[in-house]
Amino acid sequence: MPDSSDRSTSSPAQRSWWGWGNADKALPDAECTALAALVPGAADTPLPVPAISALALPKVRVEPPPALAPLMSAAPLDRASHTYGKAFRDVMRALHGDLAAAPDQVARPRTEQEVIDVLDWAAGADAAVVPYGAGSSVVGGVEYRAGLHGAVVSLDLSSLDRVLEIDRVSRSARIQAGALGPALEAQLRPHGLTLRHFPQSFEFSTLGGWLATRAGGHYATLYTHIDDLVESLRVVTPVGVNESLRLPGSGAGPSPDRLFLGSEGTLGVITEAWMRLQDRPRHKASATVLFDDVHAAMDAVRAVAQSGLHPANCRLLDPGEAALAGVAHNGESVLVLGVESAHAPVDGRLAELVTLARDHGGSAAATEPGTGDAAADTWRSAFLTMPYLRDALARMSVISETFETSCTWDRTRELYEAVRERLADVVKEVTGTAGTVNCRFTHVYPDGAAPYFTVIAPGRRGDEVAMWDEIKAASMQILHDHGATVTHHHAVGRDHRPGYDRQRPEPFALALRAAKEALDPAGILNPGVLLDPATTG
Amino acid sequence: MPDSSDRSTSSPAQRSWWGWGNADKALPDAECTALAALVPGAADTPLPVPAISALALPKVRVEPPPALAPLMSAAPLDRASHTYGKAFRDVMRALHGDLAAAPDQVARPRTEQEVIDVLDWAAGADAAVVPYGAGSSVVGGVEYRAGLHGAVVSLDLSSLDRVLEIDRVSRSARIQAGALGPALEAQLRPHGLTLRHFPQSFEFSTLGGWLATRAGGHYATLYTHIDDLVESLRVVTPVGVNESLRLPGSGAGPSPDRLFLGSEGTLGVITEAWMRLQDRPRHKASATVLFDDVHAAMDAVRAVAQSGLHPANCRLLDPGEAALAGVAHNGESVLVLGVESAHAPVDGRLAELVTLARDHGGSAAATEPGTGDAAADTWRSAFLTMPYLRDALARMSVISETFETSCTWDRTRELYEAVRERLADVVKEVTGTAGTVNCRFTHVYPDGAAPYFTVIAPGRRGDEVAMWDEIKAASMQILHDHGATVTHHHAVGRDHRPGYDRQRPEPFALALRAAKEALDPAGILNPGVLLDPATTG
Repeated sequence: MPDSSDRSTSSPAQRSWWGWGNADKALPDAECTALAALVPGAADTPLPVPAISALALPKVRVEPPPALAPLMSAAPLDRASHTYGKAFRDVMRALHGDLAAAPDQVARPRTEQEVIDVLDWAAGADAAVVPYGAGSSVVGGVEYRAGLHGAVVSLDLSSLDRVLEIDRVSRSARIQAGALGPALEAQLRPHGLTLRHFPQSFEFSTLGGWLATRAGGHYATLYTHIDDLVESLRVVTPVGVNESLRLPGSGAGPSPDRLFLGSEGTLGVITEAWMRLQDRPRHKASATVLFDDVHAAMDAVRAVAQSGLHPANCRLLDPGEAALAGVAHNGESVLVLGVESAHAPVDGRLAELVTLARDHGGSAAATEPGTGDAAADTWRSAFLTMPYLRDALARMSVISETFETSCTWDRTRELYEAVRERLADVVKEVTGTAGTVNCRFTHVYPDGAAPYFTVIAPGRRGDEVAMWDEIKAASMQILHDHGATVTHHHAVGRDHRPGYDRQRPEPFALALRAAKEALDPAGILNPGVLLDPATTG
Repeated sequence: MPDSSDRSTSSPAQRSWWGWGNADKALPDAECTALAALVPGAADTPLPVPAISALALPKVRVEPPPALAPLMSAAPLDRASHTYGKAFRDVMRALHGDLAAAPDQVARPRTEQEVIDVLDWAAGADAAVVPYGAGSSVVGGVEYRAGLHGAVVSLDLSSLDRVLEIDRVSRSARIQAGALGPALEAQLRPHGLTLRHFPQSFEFSTLGGWLATRAGGHYATLYTHIDDLVESLRVVTPVGVNESLRLPGSGAGPSPDRLFLGSEGTLGVITEAWMRLQDRPRHKASATVLFDDVHAAMDAVRAVAQSGLHPANCRLLDPGEAALAGVAHNGESVLVLGVESAHAPVDGRLAELVTLARDHGGSAAATEPGTGDAAADTWRSAFLTMPYLRDALARMSVISETFETSCTWDRTRELYEAVRERLADVVKEVTGTAGTVNCRFTHVYPDGAAPYFTVIAPGRRGDEVAMWDEIKAASMQILHDHGATVTHHHAVGRDHRPGYDRQRPEPFALALRAAKEALDPAGILNPGVLLDPATTG
């Protein structure tokens, strides 16, 4: 991922209020139309992007007290841009001007004390508080739906964006939760260090968001989730600040950090973390291996994952995904292998990996060790552009969405086939066309894989969200039937509740609810995420 | 650790009721006396081991209902052997015949249903239940002290000792919680697999105990704790069975397993787990490096830990520890490096590690790649014999105990010096002799180390426990003053509560208590561990 940390930070003013990333990267109308021509059954003309001034935002129900007024805004652009995350269904609703869920106020605390002050005020004002990093949730994580509170405040942490302290000896840093990926990497780079956490959303998501959602990074093995990079957390809860010791490892009771990792803003607001860093890699090599048979490719990936060689990249694209990414056109599956090290040359390790893949029926494309290769580069740039293309398709009423999961290897093949077959049937039923259901493996483990599915199919204008919701419900059922998790690294939010509720052990649900009631007695923190909102009594 | 998985399982009948391991491995009186001669100020004669028939056990306060009678025992040997763990203070009290804390009954369920039945009965009978694997706790984890319940039942899981299922494709196995290390490895070996978790207590501790206490294994880097090897857990709680999905990785809310890992029997009884396995290593190499300066040795270890080379062994013995283990006698520090792989030769990786150590001022002892070397072997066998020597010293009223911790690298040197100086002063004050305070690093991380201290000093007969408790209290204070954890892998139990309570963030304490009340409403599960026991109302 050579480019990830070099991308520059965008200012909030450049951000799209309705879609992904920066507004100026959105495809122009003509390109939307051209793109949709590749999807049989797509609309002919793009939906217009509503003007902010034309949006029917609900009436503001609460005003901040004078002391908090400087950090709060009820400006239509702020409210509109903080209504949803960036799922297909979010973008679609924004394009249709449906902003009934808009928060009343957007708060931008500049200090931890202001976070505390907002929570204190909100508890007394019957206002729900939705912690907001950069709003890249694709699971309804930042969208209030409970309908139980007198008002809703979006708590935007993006002003808390500094690296506060660097411990070069321990290779760790204390970083504020609102720092976007590029901003935190830019502050670490002069020290030769990197957090080396590069989710697809890297430019438009924050450390706090990654921690609250147990985000997955770009790397395919070993440190796949942000969880493993945490040394300690600082969390503002309504009953006090929770700060864990900085520790490289511990066995003192259940890990306090692990309760807050994945708590998605329901137990507290993460304001800082000590994060484990790495030296910047100096040696990189990658190779691409083609397979005629996708199941042989899966076996190769399993061998790689169980080899202890820990590739940084081990990304398998099934035939459809490889064709979509433009890296194979004859029905092959493509495995992109990458190795990185800050310390020693990696060509030997790459050669071992390629040999393993060849032993399982792969044929290696010519590759020059020490550099990336063409197919990998092509795929990488497609990966980063993907969300903008998704938005363009959304404007053409094309359903374009992904979902990811993980399961053990004994179930991987069956799960893959079930999604390809059963979900394709559902897509056909819902959309009347075959559509596209592709798969890649984004992360692999010795005991299983994380398949990531892409669905593309034409929608009926005005019904796009309902149609996707039907497909999504079916996908959650298929995952459940195969013992696969409802999410590997996109979090639960509100959209995944049906699948999450089915897979979460009931005693743990009781424990989590009890913890929530202890830490957030007024029930104001992101109500409806992970747990049903407490009904007001 | 070539021999660990080959040691045979001992039967409970061979077990020592008062000390470590098997009764026939305890040192005879003459050897106890000879050993103590090395400790200036030690007693001249060994304390006799009390006869079971001579023990003053408290009156049994509860009888099981007929349905549970077949699994319950109030035999003196059972009660005596289930009173304590195996800390110095436990062994000492047993030798003095102090068994006031003996449980009323020892229950040995043979099925999960019987675990449920015992919990159901206990809740109604006002009996506390102390889950018990093989009783190797060194932190008072299996010793009831609350004084609030009508009776106490030790719940011995050792009959649940089978590997129930092996998934060769995913390299994982479903294993019952009561399986001892050798028993579970013996069942995995025919499949070419290993759990590769080798704590010092391996022969006399169980999977369930490892999970409940977040045990540390033998390996110095990467997968240091059992936590990382867990695919899913099955836990009997008083409000129902908690079973998590088998997943290689997930981001669906806070991890359910991480709440039970380290819960030390306070939230439920772990009955089974799906565990991640590994292929048995075929390639091994190790080397020993000597350092004149212990701080240079620490720098070398840090370089190794931050190199990404993931040695299986990276064990640093400070001068005193090296001398005690018989691997160096001229004030050197000794670093034992080991590399293992199931897949590829490891000599190259070992050479890189030795070079790193040399770059930091180490001088490598001659070593033949592909085999262990003599110093490493000597140290290993001393390591496994250590607990029996400790018991022999206890019989000579010699205080002989360890404590372990972890902290980030920026604090490691200071912590080491503080323990060496401040604790040595305390030892002198308490025992009137200089005593011995040594250190080794057992586990290392990119961001810190896990120092493990050994204290040896003569005690006054009859006052040994009080003297150690004074030293222990001082050690917990020193750890706290340096931001180090009260335990890296020995758990909290009851003995570590003062340090744990100081380091645990208060909001997390509230959440944990709330979770406990939700899962164990009658407050019968291991009361006093992690949290104060609920007072009966």
